[in-house]
Amino acid sequence: MSRIAIIAGQGALAPAVAACLDDPLVFALPGFAPDGLAATTFQLERLVPFLDDLHAKGVTRVVFAGAIRRPRLDPEAFDPRTAQLVPRILTAMQSGDDAALRTALDIFEENDLTVCSVSEIAPDLIPEEGILTGEPTDADRRDAGRAARILAQTGPLDLGQGAVVAQGLCLALETLPGTAAMLDFAARHADLRPNPKGARGVLYKAPKPGQDLRIDLPTLGPDTVDQAVSAGLAGIAWAAGQVILLDRPEMVRRAQAAGLFLWAAGGLD
Amino acid sequence: MSRIAIIAGQGALAPAVAACLDDPLVFALPGFAPDGLAATTFQLERLVPFLDDLHAKGVTRVVFAGAIRRPRLDPEAFDPRTAQLVPRILTAMQSGDDAALRTALDIFEENDLTVCSVSEIAPDLIPEEGILTGEPTDADRRDAGRAARILAQTGPLDLGQGAVVAQGLCLALETLPGTAAMLDFAARHADLRPNPKGARGVLYKAPKPGQDLRIDLPTLGPDTVDQAVSAGLAGIAWAAGQVILLDRPEMVRRAQAAGLFLWAAGGLD
Repeated sequence: MSRIAIIAGQGALAPAVAACLDDPLVFALPGFAPDGLAATTFQLERLVPFLDDLHAKGVTRVVFAGAIRRPRLDPEAFDPRTAQLVPRILTAMQSGDDAALRTALDIFEENDLTVCSVSEIAPDLIPEEGILTGEPTDADRRDAGRAARILAQTGPLDLGQGAVVAQGLCLALETLPGTAAMLDFAARHADLRPNPKGARGVLYKAPKPGQDLRIDLPTLGPDTVDQAVSAGLAGIAWAAGQVILLDRPEMVRRAQAAGLFLWAAGGLD
Repeated sequence: MSRIAIIAGQGALAPAVAACLDDPLVFALPGFAPDGLAATTFQLERLVPFLDDLHAKGVTRVVFAGAIRRPRLDPEAFDPRTAQLVPRILTAMQSGDDAALRTALDIFEENDLTVCSVSEIAPDLIPEEGILTGEPTDADRRDAGRAARILAQTGPLDLGQGAVVAQGLCLALETLPGTAAMLDFAARHADLRPNPKGARGVLYKAPKPGQDLRIDLPTLGPDTVDQAVSAGLAGIAWAAGQVILLDRPEMVRRAQAAGLFLWAAGGLD
């Protein structure tokens, strides 16, 4: 029987994906296990034996779900076969997050495991084009468009997957600290909008251009809505079909309560 | 006799430029006058009469010095000749900071006033290539290089003129709120360096590629050094010959006291 393994990272994505699957196996690196989901730990230093073990358990497909920061490596923990991959792993880890993740995918697939995207495994988590609640104004649409164009340009720099734009001006751009830190920054500097009574601004999220959509898709959740409210934004927009929504009903409920729009946008960049 | 007029914005740059000149005339928009420097107020809505007044006072050269955020315009305050410039001014103000400032330069020059750069008027404020104090490591030089390449790419997006990079990763990128806000953000997230004992990171500043160097040059001062210390950085680097240092002796003193390097770098991008 063919089984699916979830390589789980921190946050709410792995539990959300697990809830869509029938009896998945769940694995996590030490220190990166998700809350509320039982996971078997595996060591990156013993990656090849771990892949053998997946085969032995009947696993043919793997899905990556959740945040994994670059783990530290213990030189003494490597098994001989994984040790041969070290130069390749180290080079990838020094070349940025995208390269490191792409190398991880390659190693899984070279070992006869198919890496599936969340959109294949759990399509309900990724809305297609449409407005979920509220109504972006023309100014909001322009702000979302400018944010999309900024991310299209900064994508090759491997910075982040989000931007906050208000009245045509970029208030914040996502970097290593992530979306929550960016929104906290935007909230601290919300008073910089040139016209205090003008457009309140938009959070826009999208994967990097050319990014492998099987890993590291941008994710939005109820907390993102709360933070967008705190930053005084008019709403949240994202690239339709390429961004994961964690707990969509709760996001819509909170957005409606606060008067924010939620918009899976197509063709902005 | 030919006189120089300083169009002063907020901050310490206008007083520093004034100190390099013999009897300059100093002007400022309402609400944007620098501290500690007497300035005559002029209205953007009466720009053409103001330019006539400069000619009447014998002014032939003008230098822009200091931060001016986009002023609000009062429709009732325009004189007839300036009113004819309104469509052009509004279009420029809606096209980003660069376009707005370039239009301002054009209008001064069309009215027979030469707009000088700070580097022409006060070359001592802009250091040429060299290390002022400390010694960047190879890792620091790589971080500065990555920051320079990021700014070279983001420049056309008219975001900002600074970036913080540590261990090859971009911790923060300057947006509308400016350098101080970016460094505050970097300090809040300083613990994200992958290797806590590795390179501490670099603040890098440079003008945008293609930017008119007669206005809006990046500026560093003693407060920047203090903030770089708070963010745990190893030092500050900038594009040699294109960044203004306010109070260089005090910057060097504080950097030495804290063990930071200060480096006017050439050829990084």
